Amino acid sequence: MSFIHDDFMLHSTVAKRLYHEFAEGLPIIDYHCHLPVQKIAENHRFADAFELFLGGDHYKWRLMRTNGIGETYITGEADGYEKWLAFCRTLPLAVGNPLYHWTHLELKRYFGVDELLSEKNAKAVWDHIDAMLKRPEFSARGLIRQSNVEVVCTTDAPGDTLEHHEKLQDFEVRVVPAFRPDLSKVTPGLTKDMDFFHDHGCRLSDHAVDAIDDETVEKLIFLGREYASRGRVKQLHFGALRNNNRRMFEKLGPDTGFDSIHDFPLAAGLAKILDGLEREDLLPKTILYCLNPKDNHVLGTMLGCFQKGPARGKIQFGSGWWFNDQRDGMQEQMKALANLGMLSSFVGMLTDSRSFVSYPRHEYFRRILCDLLGSWVERGEYPEDYALLGQSVRGICYQNAKDYFAF
Amino acid sequence: MSFIHDDFMLHSTVAKRLYHEFAEGLPIIDYHCHLPVQKIAENHRFADAFELFLGGDHYKWRLMRTNGIGETYITGEADGYEKWLAFCRTLPLAVGNPLYHWTHLELKRYFGVDELLSEKNAKAVWDHIDAMLKRPEFSARGLIRQSNVEVVCTTDAPGDTLEHHEKLQDFEVRVVPAFRPDLSKVTPGLTKDMDFFHDHGCRLSDHAVDAIDDETVEKLIFLGREYASRGRVKQLHFGALRNNNRRMFEKLGPDTGFDSIHDFPLAAGLAKILDGLEREDLLPKTILYCLNPKDNHVLGTMLGCFQKGPARGKIQFGSGWWFNDQRDGMQEQMKALANLGMLSSFVGMLTDSRSFVSYPRHEYFRRILCDLLGSWVERGEYPEDYALLGQSVRGICYQNAKDYFAF
Amino acid sequence: MSFIHDDFMLHSTVAKRLYHEFAEGLPIIDYHCHLPVQKIAENHRFADAFELFLGGDHYKWRLMRTNGIGETYITGEADGYEKWLAFCRTLPLAVGNPLYHWTHLELKRYFGVDELLSEKNAKAVWDHIDAMLKRPEFSARGLIRQSNVEVVCTTDAPGDTLEHHEKLQDFEVRVVPAFRPDLSKVTPGLTKDMDFFHDHGCRLSDHAVDAIDDETVEKLIFLGREYASRGRVKQLHFGALRNNNRRMFEKLGPDTGFDSIHDFPLAAGLAKILDGLEREDLLPKTILYCLNPKDNHVLGTMLGCFQKGPARGKIQFGSGWWFNDQRDGMQEQMKALANLGMLSSFVGMLTDSRSFVSYPRHEYFRRILCDLLGSWVERGEYPEDYALLGQSVRGICYQNAKDYFAF
Repeated sequence: MSFIHDDFMLHSTVAKRLYHEFAEGLPIIDYHCHLPVQKIAENHRFADAFELFLGGDHYKWRLMRTNGIGETYITGEADGYEKWLAFCRTLPLAVGNPLYHWTHLELKRYFGVDELLSEKNAKAVWDHIDAMLKRPEFSARGLIRQSNVEVVCTTDAPGDTLEHHEKLQDFEVRVVPAFRPDLSKVTPGLTKDMDFFHDHGCRLSDHAVDAIDDETVEKLIFLGREYASRGRVKQLHFGALRNNNRRMFEKLGPDTGFDSIHDFPLAAGLAKILDGLEREDLLPKTILYCLNPKDNHVLGTMLGCFQKGPARGKIQFGSGWWFNDQRDGMQEQMKALANLGMLSSFVGMLTDSRSFVSYPRHEYFRRILCDLLGSWVERGEYPEDYALLGQSVRGICYQNAKDYFAF
Repeated sequence: MSFIHDDFMLHSTVAKRLYHEFAEGLPIIDYHCHLPVQKIAENHRFADAFELFLGGDHYKWRLMRTNGIGETYITGEADGYEKWLAFCRTLPLAVGNPLYHWTHLELKRYFGVDELLSEKNAKAVWDHIDAMLKRPEFSARGLIRQSNVEVVCTTDAPGDTLEHHEKLQDFEVRVVPAFRPDLSKVTPGLTKDMDFFHDHGCRLSDHAVDAIDDETVEKLIFLGREYASRGRVKQLHFGALRNNNRRMFEKLGPDTGFDSIHDFPLAAGLAKILDGLEREDLLPKTILYCLNPKDNHVLGTMLGCFQKGPARGKIQFGSGWWFNDQRDGMQEQMKALANLGMLSSFVGMLTDSRSFVSYPRHEYFRRILCDLLGSWVERGEYPEDYALLGQSVRGICYQNAKDYFAF
Repeated sequence: MSFIHDDFMLHSTVAKRLYHEFAEGLPIIDYHCHLPVQKIAENHRFADAFELFLGGDHYKWRLMRTNGIGETYITGEADGYEKWLAFCRTLPLAVGNPLYHWTHLELKRYFGVDELLSEKNAKAVWDHIDAMLKRPEFSARGLIRQSNVEVVCTTDAPGDTLEHHEKLQDFEVRVVPAFRPDLSKVTPGLTKDMDFFHDHGCRLSDHAVDAIDDETVEKLIFLGREYASRGRVKQLHFGALRNNNRRMFEKLGPDTGFDSIHDFPLAAGLAKILDGLEREDLLPKTILYCLNPKDNHVLGTMLGCFQKGPARGKIQFGSGWWFNDQRDGMQEQMKALANLGMLSSFVGMLTDSRSFVSYPRHEYFRRILCDLLGSWVERGEYPEDYALLGQSVRGICYQNAKDYFAF
């Protein structure tokens, strides 16, 4: 049997039925990613497996560094194939790591590779990918198209001209910007950029909240007001500690694999932000994400203090993300949300990736969701009612996001 | 098969045997609840399903708000049946939430309703409950009597005249006050109230510790001394962040569903309180509760630093409570206690409810306890010795509390 | 069937095969313990079961205190057998506690006792152990020899003359010191001691980091530099709160069962230490341990920021330790490491014990490791490839530590 078989990660009859009947065929609302829009606009062609799989993927770089691979073979001078080979030597050792699953999903879904990647088949797989990358359906747009994506929200800084987005009118997949100001640069003048983005279809903003002092609270209240008045969704990502290794930061810049999870207390500050806005009746739809699973219960209970109709799940607890984008992390987030709030109103998975072949992470999420629901049903904790279950699955995988963001 | 069937939540042969042979028939020592004593004294009659199930239950209100239900249908102008209907529309969507289980347990145990609640049967169930509420066994006292409760400790503020407690001499269930001073109002004059409460059978005090600064530490040491000299049990509840939404607080007051879990560090402050008292040999029996599961391991290990015979489990790690009063929360608390201390000396479940139909939460707890023990036995991690296991089950569900509080 | 049977803690076919084919026979690299070296040097003979099992084991003392046993029967005046009896009365109640497993493993592996310990067989087991302790293979060295130990690293303070280590040249098991300075006494003069220890085979240092203020950061950077230049491994143990009960501390001294888990935030301080050293290219191999499981994800992601070849897993996430040295604690540490880093490069279990019969904790760890890997394979999350799996098992149980420490 293939490693990535039809029922991968599905461990009960109910789980299998939920996945195959309800989840499998749904389109993806990619409301949060870091795809380089210029490459979509120019319909970029990928040179080889290195560029496509390893070129910008700091998850894989970290794994290789941990395996003792020299930086030469990661971000350095070595050629693409040498780096690919170093990765192929590393991957088989990654027992229990999501990269083992993601990589094999990516190889199978895009390239039909149904073998376990290793040093032995590194060259054959490289050649196979090489041949396929020559086909038009493996361009940037082709890969998005193949992935059954309905909307893509890229992440863009204020001041961006959005010229590449403008070039995407002819692409049948809707590609819109998301607004991500650096919190240290928030000024009243920013509202012009918001309007400009809004006119380009932007419906989400995003903020990395790496500390939660008074100034941050104040800025987030200022921004929240502006978003509320524009009907925009605000995303808050808590708990990263960035660029911990200054030597490597100076060499390679940010987002190259030198960040970790942070551990500051956030409940009081977060309550202040949400309350400050709610008090003025200017609390926008908000998604709260935490990188440290110790915060799952704070977030899971904070939501309930600010829910307000008519929206279902106006305040959302965002999906397990970045370091938590794995079976245990996603399960823990969904269990906390189910216990403390309402899982069925969840807007589901975010891609959060720089890679054009990372859409199978939605498949991964959907399988894990269906498996979790299936396990509850099989344990008699929820009725085997496929109308209800199917509604939840469809909602979490697609419909809730569609309704919530209303692109 | 019924959703709430005989072996609900029991997944092994051992679990089933433990529950049915040892746990099922035991009385309840309700050492901590928020039942309104006046209603017990006056033997209150409930008007309808709305009053009984939804009238004061902010767990349910939060779920409804999350589902987009307007406040009119929660705490507002709408009539009781309209609110009930809104709840019936919401509940089926609560997959993975303890309310799904609690509500169906409540409906079955008190009203014999063996269907899954939904919009479809909302009216029929409403009518059925209406008819039953007319019977005398559905008065406030009747419901307590039906629930096999031996003692009820209500929660009362210093200064209370305890007049309602005095009217309860003729009720065969013992109803005594528990002493809950607001920490911000602790003064030496409080000791008179303690004596007054003590004379009315009070054996427990309770404190919400929402911060742990020097002043709080000092007050809790002062109170501890007084409790120790009266042989009273002290309860400390850590980790709530209250009234986060000021708009709604101003409208509806406290305890209406706008609190969350807090995340302040507590180990050092807690050690100071316990050590300050132990140093004077005036550490009373103490139960430590945490609302944030991240504190499970701090509490689970702090106990062991202050245990002292002849009491078994003099310092207790309190049950998963409020937001943690669900399968995962209760399991995590019990696993932490078992790993770090001694589960078999645990005083077990607290009701912590304002509702007269929440006693099935003890059944829920007992099933989860038996299932956990059963899973260990089935995995060969503890012998299948029913004398020993039964002693633990009986202890945790009833006898330990009886011995510990010695009402 | 025996309680400690061949497949104890192994719940799948894969787990059983991994344990019996790969893990079971491997020697132990005991890179971290608290065995009193003088007793090894003098080849101490143990008087009775009390001295061997209870004499210095504060885990057991805590359990007895929790069970209401008076201090007389723990560290006080009572004779050895009375204390043993009190322990035998307590142990059967420890359902879910690792002591239940450890004790039965110890009794079976060293003394062939295959019964469940209780008050009933307390005397018979006492007599049986008494008789066996008379044999030479039950001396301090004999017990180490029986345990298939290759290297022992004791824990020693700077200034120690290491005279006992010098007397161990004739012992076929290598016994070397580990360097454990008290952080409050770190001065530049310490480097002489480091050299002295290095000449005696010391390859590890150890630090209890119970707070992480600027001064601590600075001292740890100073020490790290020195360790890096000597090629030594640095261990950082985070998150204990010690001597919480001053009454008992004054009576019995440290390490007598009055410590708990602490809960200070550590991410920022830890990043500073590692970055400060990496910046100077003087970051030694480092093992990070946390006592509070809430820190598992901070540590598991911090590693990746400082990994650097050619070593595999230069920065390690240390094993579940002290209070976490149980099934759940070890599983959670390994799952976090697998998800966030690379489990297969892990140096595995530390003994961390004062007892000469605690080596079965390695067996316990190995069984839990194989069971975890087996569960992943049985769930189709990793291929059933025994070459790869066996390499991981062998690495984690033995080879990685051997390569990493290079004694």
